[in-house]
Order: sequence, then structure tokens, then C-alpha cells
Amino acid sequence: MAKRRIYLEDIPLDEARAKLQAALESAGKASPLPGESVPLDEALGRVTAEPIHARLSSPHFHCAAMDGYAVSAAATVSARETRALALRLGVEAFPVNTGDPLPEATNAVIMIENVNQADESTILIYAAAAPWQHVRLMGEDMVATETVLQINHQLRPVDLGALAGCGHQQVTVRRKPRVVIIPTGSELVALPERPKRGQLIEYNSLILRGQIHEAGGEASATAIVGDDETALRQALTDAIAAKPDLILVLSGSSAGSHDFSANAIKALGDVLVHGIAVRPGHPVIIGIASDIPVIGVPGYPVSAALTGELFIVPLIRQWLGLAPLQRATIEALSTQKIASPIGDDDFLRVALAEIDGRLQATPLQRGAGVITSLAQADGLAHIPRFHEGVDRGGTIKVSLYRPLSLIKQTLLIMGSHDPMLDLLATHLRKRTSDQRIASVNVGSLGGLIALRRGEAHLAGCHLFHPESETYNVPYLQRYLPNEPLELVTFAQREQGLILAAGNPKGISSIADLRGARYINRQRGAGTRLLVDHLLTQHEISADEIAGYEHEEYTHLAVAAAVADGIGDCGMGLRSAAEAMGLDFIGLTWERFDLAIPRRHLENAGIRALLEVLRDEAFKRDLGAQKGYRSDETGIIVGS
Amino acid sequence: MAKRRIYLEDIPLDEARAKLQAALESAGKASPLPGESVPLDEALGRVTAEPIHARLSSPHFHCAAMDGYAVSAAATVSARETRALALRLGVEAFPVNTGDPLPEATNAVIMIENVNQADESTILIYAAAAPWQHVRLMGEDMVATETVLQINHQLRPVDLGALAGCGHQQVTVRRKPRVVIIPTGSELVALPERPKRGQLIEYNSLILRGQIHEAGGEASATAIVGDDETALRQALTDAIAAKPDLILVLSGSSAGSHDFSANAIKALGDVLVHGIAVRPGHPVIIGIASDIPVIGVPGYPVSAALTGELFIVPLIRQWLGLAPLQRATIEALSTQKIASPIGDDDFLRVALAEIDGRLQATPLQRGAGVITSLAQADGLAHIPRFHEGVDRGGTIKVSLYRPLSLIKQTLLIMGSHDPMLDLLATHLRKRTSDQRIASVNVGSLGGLIALRRGEAHLAGCHLFHPESETYNVPYLQRYLPNEPLELVTFAQREQGLILAAGNPKGISSIADLRGARYINRQRGAGTRLLVDHLLTQHEISADEIAGYEHEEYTHLAVAAAVADGIGDCGMGLRSAAEAMGLDFIGLTWERFDLAIPRRHLENAGIRALLEVLRDEAFKRDLGAQKGYRSDETGIIVGS
Repeated sequence: MAKRRIYLEDIPLDEARAKLQAALESAGKASPLPGESVPLDEALGRVTAEPIHARLSSPHFHCAAMDGYAVSAAATVSARETRALALRLGVEAFPVNTGDPLPEATNAVIMIENVNQADESTILIYAAAAPWQHVRLMGEDMVATETVLQINHQLRPVDLGALAGCGHQQVTVRRKPRVVIIPTGSELVALPERPKRGQLIEYNSLILRGQIHEAGGEASATAIVGDDETALRQALTDAIAAKPDLILVLSGSSAGSHDFSANAIKALGDVLVHGIAVRPGHPVIIGIASDIPVIGVPGYPVSAALTGELFIVPLIRQWLGLAPLQRATIEALSTQKIASPIGDDDFLRVALAEIDGRLQATPLQRGAGVITSLAQADGLAHIPRFHEGVDRGGTIKVSLYRPLSLIKQTLLIMGSHDPMLDLLATHLRKRTSDQRIASVNVGSLGGLIALRRGEAHLAGCHLFHPESETYNVPYLQRYLPNEPLELVTFAQREQGLILAAGNPKGISSIADLRGARYINRQRGAGTRLLVDHLLTQHEISADEIAGYEHEEYTHLAVAAAVADGIGDCGMGLRSAAEAMGLDFIGLTWERFDLAIPRRHLENAGIRALLEVLRDEAFKRDLGAQKGYRSDETGIIVGS
Repeated sequence: MAKRRIYLEDIPLDEARAKLQAALESAGKASPLPGESVPLDEALGRVTAEPIHARLSSPHFHCAAMDGYAVSAAATVSARETRALALRLGVEAFPVNTGDPLPEATNAVIMIENVNQADESTILIYAAAAPWQHVRLMGEDMVATETVLQINHQLRPVDLGALAGCGHQQVTVRRKPRVVIIPTGSELVALPERPKRGQLIEYNSLILRGQIHEAGGEASATAIVGDDETALRQALTDAIAAKPDLILVLSGSSAGSHDFSANAIKALGDVLVHGIAVRPGHPVIIGIASDIPVIGVPGYPVSAALTGELFIVPLIRQWLGLAPLQRATIEALSTQKIASPIGDDDFLRVALAEIDGRLQATPLQRGAGVITSLAQADGLAHIPRFHEGVDRGGTIKVSLYRPLSLIKQTLLIMGSHDPMLDLLATHLRKRTSDQRIASVNVGSLGGLIALRRGEAHLAGCHLFHPESETYNVPYLQRYLPNEPLELVTFAQREQGLILAAGNPKGISSIADLRGARYINRQRGAGTRLLVDHLLTQHEISADEIAGYEHEEYTHLAVAAAVADGIGDCGMGLRSAAEAMGLDFIGLTWERFDLAIPRRHLENAGIRALLEVLRDEAFKRDLGAQKGYRSDETGIIVGS
């Protein structure tokens, strides 16, 4: 194992940015990039490198603003309603269409509606024309030399029209910043290769290239460099020789890989910052080599993406002459207590929903390896340095990843998660393309508590009540006695034992759990209640079950643990076993219901959701899934 | 002249949209387009055509979450702080880096910091390892078969990362909608040709292609078709043969051109809508031919761009499975009374600024030919059908073309416009890339009135006071007696007579204005006051000046009118004469000042603006312009 740097610096975010700026200043790289001339039809989204002046006036001649006849106003003064004036066509009056230039010696247009044709060569008019009436004067839109667009302006479709209209065929825009990305890490393989056991797909370069492209830059990635300092130094030397504006070295996941990056940058230039007090994303490196800034990007994908947002995108925009991107920001109430290390700028991915008129933020999983949490996030909450976090119900600032209008149309389901809720979401989205469902998995009981707190629109639950041998209703009476609500069946699901493929331990019933390594579900999960009930029925105590304390949060996680040999057996859905290619012994069919407070029934999203539940196409799709029955789907089973 | 259809239908906006939707439904074209598979690195911004499920779990093996040693937890139970346990390397303990797969028969990682190396083959540990400590379990991020992204989701950089991470090399996205654009109009020439007198550059296709491209579609434009129904019918037939998703026929500016479009569509299919009660944009045509929707787009550029926003972009998004674009919307106070025809949906381009904490909207020029008004607009105000308009100070809804944060950083200058304010804006933008200046030209007195009403941050004025022979100060005392403000000199400017090139009328002084055709400025303009003063000095009455009643609103407009021979002479700036290649006789140097209410002096934008005014580089640039002196620029001349 290589010698390791265990301690990193912990430089505050602002200070790290200031160091980068100072280094750019002294390298002469802090200013916007120079301009290049491009044809207008390639200029959309580019940024002007100079103020643009009109070359031609627009229109560049006086022209008719109406269809009719061009005349000299002075020749029409004697016309009256009661005494028509005859004008000779081609001599005193000239037919013009809108946009036509005014013929010599004319200065007004009479609308075609106000004219009678006396004969082939004569028209009659009934009122004098005022000078310049119905005439678009030269330069009405733009006068030559006028400033049409300012410097550092990102070109939109109408801007291109304005430029063409005042005589430009080309426009001078800032050169695109060029970035070379060097991914490192011996454990990584590049797309489209498929990873073997122990290998991971390198996709941070895909995320960063996308961010750079969206910001207006160009990025290319080199081949992956293994954890070998000499090879990395060579790759860095090659990158410098190509004279890009920025080099990114993407660390692999190990601390060793990170150190190779720092050492290679140090060998060829200076390391200015090594470790930033930001979560997630600590081990960012900022250096400069041959006057080219080099950023070492942490290996965990969430850290990498946030490094892109916090350091790389702002740099691209600076080089384009654009102000930092300001996402729309809102304040939301946190549904959880959030502890935050006092010395760090802490960035949390959150799910947002508007419930009872209040915007509520629920933090998503914090692991820096969980890229799906970033893909699912509605926004990023920032808890600044020197703040300790917020209490449940406290206010946090969130910068939005999705438009607020879309967030306000999101239905938040908390409680037990069923994979088929995604099928529901798909059908809902096909019906109304802007209706989203967000689902936060807190177990069946957790969902009822969330409803009580007003933190969800609806809750998914499958809580077996042994005394009454019914599902859900007794629990609603206990946990939400004062909340008028409707309970609607979502599906009936087959629960049973998930077993390794081929069932090598020969497990055939609950009784066989004695002596097997078991994978359990968390407290409050409906499946956990079911298991406890079955164990009681079979007079088995929890102590007799090895692994009873190993808790997983989803059916798929239980199946995955069995598939990987962590345990021999777990309780869960047939669908989870099928998904992982495992054996399954069905024990019971259970009812999974949705609890919806009555005050939400008029919500347009809830109405659409109930329509989908009663839609035959959806019920057919749901019933075709292994381990599901949909004959009771959409039926109100309690209220 | 061709026979003309003078009256169009006037179908309400909603009804027109409903007719289009009904026609799409019956042609089977209302649904999102089918999918096509593209590599991930080409998928940014595309829209998923199906829900995407994880192919691999991520990580797809249990792996170390820390650098250290992988062990079997069961083998460590006897380790104590006070009684180190020795583990044999390669037998009981295996060195691992973060991300490495756990070796067979291990289920925990001990951090390197908590280990001492006894010798080459042995490590010492001081605490038992809990099962699965410092282990990233298989599927922590995604479990195979889980839904990773929903259908109809527009792909962002992190989404591409999530897809790659769970085993996708390709993704199925909606085919891009294809649009064929047919520009028509005999008066039009295509880029990069230069227009002759009577010709206009065709740029509506550039705007529409940009809008379609931004919305996620593909568009190509055919050659321009002249005002000839047979040729247009042929072009339409060719377009239909290419089987695009949508055809646009862009009318030329004349009513005749519009009729050719309607007739050609009718010859090959059906016209569903011919004229919509929307301003600007009335003469929109909606038709369908061979099951392909055909939209006839009005010729005026503002109408064309709004037809793109109201009909074409929503259609592209519908085909991509996306909800209609919802721009952020704010409420603002109108600084003007706005009359709106009661039967129409009226869309007004507005400039926005935040003054004294209130968002204020000033409507820009309403002519549908003025594309610059759309390029300058901060947003689009909508006055719905059946509303009569709003009073000054009334509230209007505005959908934003720029981020609100940027609008809040805009300084609004009202009053007299000097072309060098653009130079000021350029220097300001170079200094702080997000500081914008918007300038609304209402003349010097109009600017003071705007300040009094709190409708501008500052006002530009050059008001000569004959009695005291001073500038501006007496007017401030008269119009703003109770407003504490600072008056800062912007520039001294040379005013004089703008004459046709070569001065064919031999004008040499104010006295020669008798008998010449004069172009005047509007009442309230500083230049108008100056002219009136000079005429009084020379004992000339306004009646003696031909054209005294012809009012233009800017120096450049006066110069343009002289250049085009509408008049022989006007009063204005040397810079305007120079810009148009005209002769000039200097009469006086005048002072152009900026009046700034003291309560705005702490505004960051005003502070930056004052810094620029005192910056030597700016003063050098300004002084180098013909007809400008900058030696007093930045000096406070009154307060």
C-alpha cells in the first residue's frame, strides 16, 4: 500500500475561490476570453465579445405600413368626404403593399379600404392624407450606428433576428473555454466497456463534460490513467502541451489516487489549495501549471458534480464574461433535524413538496457515492460555515434544480415504498406530462406519522393487524384518529421468503429460519410486522434468528443482500426475488393501500392519481407483474 | 395588385389552440414522438421515451468505504484497547483502498488510522469491528431493476452519470421533432446577401429556427419563395413529401403574401384557423395537410417571434412529452396607462426595474416591426381577453425573459438619451458582468418627472436655462424641489446643425433655417429647448420654419431623416451627424448631466456607475469620441 497523506487542509470555500482568482490574475487568465467571428446561424447561446452596433438602419428606407396607395400628402389637401379627389395611378398615386418602399416624391399612404377605384387609371380619395401617415420611417427599429446588443450578452433567437435585421451576417462572440479532463483510478473502466467485479464505470467525466457543455465550454476526456504517478504526470504534461484553458484531474475513489493527483500537479506546477471545508467534496485540489489552472476533482460522484457547480461552471462563465449562474432560491421548512459540522459549508440534496401551502424540504441520502440522490433532488440546501444546522420545522434556503411550478405540482408519497409506485408515476406522466410523484421511503408507520405532521400528500402502507386480521384500518384509527381520510387500495402483493438461487439451504417455511442467516427489515416496516407476527405464530423468538438485527430499508436491498450471500434468506416481495433471479416461497398476499387525507382530495394531482388507479390500462399493467394482483386496485377500503 | 382578403377571422387564442389539438388528435399526431437509442454522451438535453431501470446495482459488489484493512468481524471480537489483537496480513486482514471490493469471507473494514503494523506480515487492532462497518453495500446507490429515471424526463449531466453508473451505455430518448420552414415574400433576401433599396433581410426563419432548436427540435429553412401562389404550392408539396412533423409558412410583410399562404394551404389541405385575436400577431394561419400541421406565421418579426412562443414551442414540447414551458412570472406596477382592445389577448414587451423596492414595468414600443423592442424586453406582459387594460400604477403580470436577480440589478435611466450611455454600460459590464443599464428615452423633462414619480434610478438631462444661462440646476429646483439629489456631469456635447452631405442648401447658421425644411425634436427634449432659445435670439418665429411640427425622438432619428431627404436640416449632436456621414455646423457645447436621488447613492449599481464616471480609462474613451469632451465627467455640479 502506498504511503498516504491522511490529513488534508481545510480551507474555507471563499478563501479557496480567492486563491484561485489570485492565481488566475497573476497568470493573466482572469479576464473573459477573446472573440471570434461566427455566422449568425451558429451563434445561438454564444456570448458577445463586444457591443454590437447597427450597420444598416431598419427599415433602411421609408416604407408602407399598410397595403394601399402611396401619395404626396400635399397633393391631397382638397379631398373631402363630400368632395372626392381623383388621383391618377402611376402619376399621383402608386399601389403599394405593406413593406414596399415609398416611390419618389411620396410621403404618405392611404389605406386600400378608404379608396374607390374610378376607372383603370384613376382612384378617388375622400380625405386629405397627413404627411407620413401609414409610413414606417427609415430607422423605426434601428438606426445605423446605434448599439443593438451589449458586450457579454448571451444570444437568444430574437437577438439573432435583431442582428440580421441591422445588416450583420456574422457576430463576434467569445471563444469557447476548452477543458481537458483526465480521469484516474485503476478500478475504473470507460464506457462502453462493462465492469467486472471490482471495477467501476468511470462516469464523473460524463457529468463534468455535460456541466461544461451546458455552461458554454468544450470539454474532452483523455483515456483513464491508472493509479500510477508517473503515468499521471505524463498525461498532465500532454494536457498542458495542448494549451487548454483548464485541466481537470478526476481522482479515483481511494485516498491514494487523490495523492497521486496532488503530487503530479505539484511536480509540474503549484498546488494552491488541497482540501476545502465543503461537504460533500472535501478533497478538492486547486493548482496551476504553466499558467493553466488545474483542478483536482474528488472521486465520489456527488462530490465531483458539486465541485463542478461550485468551481468549474463559475470559471467557464467568468471566461465567457457572464455573471455566476444564479439559480432561483426559495425558503422551505425542513422536515428533519439537520446537524451540520460548524466549520464546513454544507450542501444537502433535498426533495421539495408543497403541502397545505407550505414548501417542505426533506434531505435525501447524504452519502457522496449516491448519484441517484442528486438526480432525484429538487434542489440544493446550503448550510453555511459557522451554522450548526437546523431543527425540524426550521427554515432552510434551497436553490432550485427544477422550476418551482413543477415542484408545486409534485405529489409527495411517504411511507412504505412499492416498486410499482413507479409504474403509477409512469402512467400519471403519460396522462399529464407535468405531474410528478416523489416517493420517500420511511416505512409504513413512518408514512402515517408524516401524514399526521402534514409532511406528505399521501402515505403508502401495508400494516397487518394480527388481532383483527385486517390491514391498515386499525393503525389509521390509532395514529390518525382525528384526520378525515380515504384509504384506497393500490395492489395486493405476494410476500414470502426470498432465498438464494436454487435454495441451497433447503429452506421451505418460516420454521426453517432457525439456523439460517436472516436479513431483516427495519422497525416500522409493514414487512417487519408481518415477520414478527409469523414468528409469534410459529412460536419462534427473535433471539433464535441469526441476523434478526441486520436491518435493510427496502425489499430490493433484502434481495440484494441474499443475492450477494450476506444472508441466506429474507422476507419480502416476490417481485424483488424475481428481479434478482432468486428463489421465492410465497407465504401470504397482503394489501398495500394509499392513505389520503380528505383535504387533499381536491388537489389536481391526487384527482389524476385516483383516475389512474381506476384506469383499466393501468390495472392490466399492474396485474401482469409477477407477485401483484390488481382486482381491488382503486377501491376505497376505509374512510 | 392582387385581389385581397381584407377581413380575417378573429378566433380567441384558446379556441385556436383547441382546434389545432383536435386536428392533431384526428391525424394521430397529438402524442409524444417515439424513441430512438442514443449513446449517453450525445443524450444531454434529450427527453426519455420510457422509464429507465437500473441494469446493474451500484456499486455492484460490497466495497470498502475507507482506506484500511478488510477483516471478518467475527475474527475481531476479542480485540480491546488494552489488549491488541494481531491479524495476519493476507490471511485474516487484507489491505484495501476506498472503492475496492471486499475480499472473500470479509465483512468489515478497519480504518488505517486505527491499526498499527507489528511487522511485515502482521497488524495490531485495538477494537472489535462491527459487521459491515465502513463497507459500502452492494446497491447502496441503485439496485438492479429499480427505476432510475421516469419517462418524459429531460436529461441533465447528473442523470447521465446515474445512467452510466447503473450499466447503461445508451438511452432511449424521443426523436427530435422536425420542422420545415418556408419563408415567402418577394421583397425578402436571404442571409448572407445584402439588401438593395426596397429589399429586406429575411430573418424570421433565423428566430424561429433558434426557438425550435432551444425547445429541442430540428428545423431547416427552404429558399425564399416569392409572392407567387403556384411556387408556394410547389414548395409546400415538396415540404409535405419530406414528411416533417410541422411545416411553417412565413408570410412576407404584405397582406397579399399572407393570402398566398392561406390559399396554398387550402389547396393542399384544410385551413382550420385564419386570424387569431392576439396582439401582436393577428394573421396566424393554422392548417393541416396530409396529416401534417401547417402554421402560417405573420411577417412582422415581433408577431413571428410571439407566434413561435405561443404555438410552435408548445407543440415541440408536446411532441417531446414535456409540459408547456412555464417562465417565472412576477407582478409589477405599470408606469403607464395601457389601453388594450377588449376582444384580444394582448402581449406587451416591457422593461422592468426595481425602484424603492417596487418592481415597475414600462411598456416598450408596440410596433410589431420593432424587433429590438423584443431583444430589449425584460419580460412579456399579458393582458387577457375581456380586460380593458391597466391604469398607471396598476398591477400587471409579466412572464420573465431574464432572471429576476438580473432584473433587480438593472439601473433604469430615464430622460434624455445620449448614445454614449451605451459606452458607459459597456465599461460597467466589463467591471461587473451582471450590472445592466436600461435606458428609456422620454426627453430631459420627462426624466425629471419620472424621478419625481419614483420610476427611474436616475435621469439624463441637458436643459438649458436662458435666464441664468446655466444647465439643469434651475429645472431640478422647479420640478424636484423636495428631492435631495446629486447632479453629476456625464459629458459635454457639441450641438449644432445636422445637414445633408455636402450641404447642398448652403445653410451656415440658424438664420438660414427660414426657407429650409427642418426636422424638429419633441417637446420636453433638451435640444428642443435649445433650438427655441436660439430661434428667440435670432428673432425667428416657429411659423417661419417649415417642418417645425415634424418631431423626432432621438438625435439619430433626426440625422436619419436628413440623410433620407425628408428634411434639409435638423438640430442635434455632432456624433449623430458623423454616424450618418452628414455635414455638421457646431453651434454650442452643452452639458449633459445625470440626476441621482440621494436615496439611490448606496445602490451598488449606482456606486459602480459613479466609479466608472471617474475612471480615467472611461474618460479617455469618451473624450476620444467626436463631439464629446470628458474633462468635467464625474464632477458633482449640484446637490
